[in-house]
Amino acid sequence: MSSPSPRGFRSRTAAWGIKDDADDFTVVLSEVPAVASAVFTQSRFVGPSVTLGRESMATGTARGVVVIARNANVATGAEGMANAMEVRATVAKAAGIPPEELLIASTGVIGRQYPMDRVRSGLAELKWPLPAVDLAAAAKAIMTTDTVAKHVALPCGAATVGAIAKGVGMIEPNMATLLVFFFTDAQLDQPVLDQIFRRVVDRTFNALSIDTDTSTSDTAAILANGLAGPVDEAEFEVVLYQAALQLVRRIASDGEGASKLIEVRVVGARDDAQAKRVGKTVVNSPLVKTAVHGADPNWGRVAMAIGKCEDDLDIDPANVAIRFGDVETYPTPATDEVLAAATAHLKGSEIVITIELGIAAGEFTVYGCDLTDGYIRINADYTT
Amino acid sequence: MSSPSPRGFRSRTAAWGIKDDADDFTVVLSEVPAVASAVFTQSRFVGPSVTLGRESMATGTARGVVVIARNANVATGAEGMANAMEVRATVAKAAGIPPEELLIASTGVIGRQYPMDRVRSGLAELKWPLPAVDLAAAAKAIMTTDTVAKHVALPCGAATVGAIAKGVGMIEPNMATLLVFFFTDAQLDQPVLDQIFRRVVDRTFNALSIDTDTSTSDTAAILANGLAGPVDEAEFEVVLYQAALQLVRRIASDGEGASKLIEVRVVGARDDAQAKRVGKTVVNSPLVKTAVHGADPNWGRVAMAIGKCEDDLDIDPANVAIRFGDVETYPTPATDEVLAAATAHLKGSEIVITIELGIAAGEFTVYGCDLTDGYIRINADYTT
Repeated sequence: MSSPSPRGFRSRTAAWGIKDDADDFTVVLSEVPAVASAVFTQSRFVGPSVTLGRESMATGTARGVVVIARNANVATGAEGMANAMEVRATVAKAAGIPPEELLIASTGVIGRQYPMDRVRSGLAELKWPLPAVDLAAAAKAIMTTDTVAKHVALPCGAATVGAIAKGVGMIEPNMATLLVFFFTDAQLDQPVLDQIFRRVVDRTFNALSIDTDTSTSDTAAILANGLAGPVDEAEFEVVLYQAALQLVRRIASDGEGASKLIEVRVVGARDDAQAKRVGKTVVNSPLVKTAVHGADPNWGRVAMAIGKCEDDLDIDPANVAIRFGDVETYPTPATDEVLAAATAHLKGSEIVITIELGIAAGEFTVYGCDLTDGYIRINADYTT
Repeated sequence: MSSPSPRGFRSRTAAWGIKDDADDFTVVLSEVPAVASAVFTQSRFVGPSVTLGRESMATGTARGVVVIARNANVATGAEGMANAMEVRATVAKAAGIPPEELLIASTGVIGRQYPMDRVRSGLAELKWPLPAVDLAAAAKAIMTTDTVAKHVALPCGAATVGAIAKGVGMIEPNMATLLVFFFTDAQLDQPVLDQIFRRVVDRTFNALSIDTDTSTSDTAAILANGLAGPVDEAEFEVVLYQAALQLVRRIASDGEGASKLIEVRVVGARDDAQAKRVGKTVVNSPLVKTAVHGADPNWGRVAMAIGKCEDDLDIDPANVAIRFGDVETYPTPATDEVLAAATAHLKGSEIVITIELGIAAGEFTVYGCDLTDGYIRINADYTT
C-alpha cells in the first residue's frame, strides 16, 4: 500500500502552534552516519538556518534535519541565531549526535522571532525514540502555502530514494521557500554523491521558476546512509533525477494560484547555458504566463520574450521556430486553423512550449506555471 | 487654456480602422530641418520600424514621425518591411522630404501584416498641409492599452519642450510598447542634444519597469528644430528631465491594471549602477508588487528582493535600512505601531520605498506599479 521507504531513517512531526494548529515541526534522522550534500539559496539576506547549514555541510556528513514551518527566522539578528542554535542543540542532544550533524531549516514570515515559549515546550514534549520514517507526514508538516504535500520514493536496485519537498522554486522561488530533502539507503562515496546531486539539482530545481523571487531560505539536501549497500552510480543518478523531476513538476503545478504547468523546451542553442537563459526568460515572462492562463496562442509574446536576451547576438528571428505542443506557430503562418490547434493544447493542464533557436545543439528544459488572479489574491492578502 | 506648443511643428491624426474606429494614425512634422536623437529597444526580435529608425537616425537629423497603432508590424518578414517602407515613402513624398528623414513607429499585435488596403486609402485621403501640432490629439492616437493620453509641454527660456508618450516601460516595457517623442523649438547642436537626451532617458524611461517584459518596438526620440533660438544647455536638460519624469510617472500610474505608482529610491550604494540594479530588483518583484497592492507593510519581501542581488557581495543586511514613506521598518523593530504607520502610507496612490545600503554614495530611483487582478485580466483575455 504505502511506498517503500529508505532503510534506517526515522521521523516525527508535531504541532507546536507556531501560527495555527497544523503540524509545524519535523525531524528526520538516520540511525547511522550518512554522507550528505546540500545546496542553499544565493540570497544576500540569509538567516541563521542557512548560515548554520552551510557551516555544518563542510564535513560532507549529516545525521538528519529539523524543520520549523510558518516562521523563516530571517532578519532576526543575534537573538534569531541563538534560537536556531538552541533548537538544533536540544534535538541533537536528545538524539545523541553532535549539533553540527543536524541541518535546520525554516520557512514562513520574515523578521519575527520564533515563539520560544512554544518551541521550548514542544522540544520538551518530543517523544524518543522516533518511529520509522513517514515521508507523507513529514511532507505535510513542512508545507506553508502549498496546497498538496509533495513526497516521492523510488527504488534503485536494492536501495530506495525518498524525498520530501515544499514551496515553489529554487534559484527563483516564491517566498514560501523551497525546501527539499532526499533520504536514501544507497551507499555512495560523498564526492560522488555530491557531484550527482549538484548535476541533478541543476537540471531540476534550478530549472524551476514560479515568480522570479528568490527566497532567503531555500535548501536542498540529500542524506545517504548506505544501509542498502552499493548501487550503480549511473542508475542512481537517473533515479534521483526522476524523483527530483516528479517533485519539480508537482511544485510547478502547485505554484501559488497556478492552474497550469508550463514546460519550456529550448533546443538548437549555442550551448546549454544559452538554452537555459532563453527558457528562463520565456517561463518568467508575465505576458507569456498570462497568455497561457487565458489559453491564448499569443506566440508573439514568446517571440518578445526570446528577444529580451539582448546579449545573445546569435539569436536571429529568421532561424527561430516556436511551437505550442506539436503546433508550430512561427515561422509557419499562424492561420486560424493553426491558432485553433494551439489553443486546444493551451486548454490542457500541462503546456509545452518548444523553442528551436537554429544555432547549434545546446538544449535545456525549464518548468514554471501560469500567472492568475489566485496569485494576486494569495500575495496581496498575505499578512505580515 | 491650452499648453504652449513648440514652434514650427504640425500634426494630423486619423482613424484608418486598423483594429477599431479610434484614431490609429499619427504624423508629426517639423516645418524646417531639425536635429534629432533616438534610442530603440534592445530586443533581438525587432521589426521594420525599429530597423528603419536605427538606419535613418545615423544622420542625426529628422523631420518627423509617423505612428501606426494597433499593429506592431513585427515578425512580418519581407512583406512587413516593404509595407513599412511604402508608408514612410508615401508620407515623405507628400511632405516633400526624403523618406530617411521620417521615423516610423508601430505598436500593437505581433505577427500580423498591416491591412494595406485600409492603410493605402488612409494615406490617399490624408489632407495637406497639416495644421499646427496638437499634442493632445497625437498622444491619444498612439494609445493602445493606455487608459489616459500622456503629453506634456514645458517652457525652457523662449523655447518649449513638448512630448507625447504611450505604453508602459522602456528597457522592460509591456508589449503595449513604449513610444515617446519629444518636439522642441530649442536650438541645440546635435551632439549636445544627443548626450542630454541619453542622460535624461537613462534616469527616466530606463528607470521604469511595469512588468519586466521588453517590447520589440520601443522607441524614444527627440526633434529640435531651433526656431526659438539657443537655450541654456543646463536649463534645457533640467526641463527635459522634468518633462520625461512627468511622463514616466503617468506611464507607471497607468501600468496595465495598476492602482498605485511605486517609486523605489536606493541610496548609499557602491555606485549608481548598483543602486539601479537593486532598485529594479525590488520594483520588479511580484511579491513586493502584490504586497503594495494589498497595502501590506511586508518589508521582509523588500529584504528578500534586495537579497536577490547575489553578486553584490558588499550588500550586508547589517548595514541595510528599509523605509515605506518616512517609516523605517528595518532595522527599527517593526512594532504594531510602526506597521500601522507603514500601512497608512501604503494605502496612498504614490508609494515610496527607500533602501539605504550603507556602502557609499551611489543612488538611483526607479519607477513601477503594483500587480493586480486587473493585469491578469487584461493580459489573459487579450486575444491574438
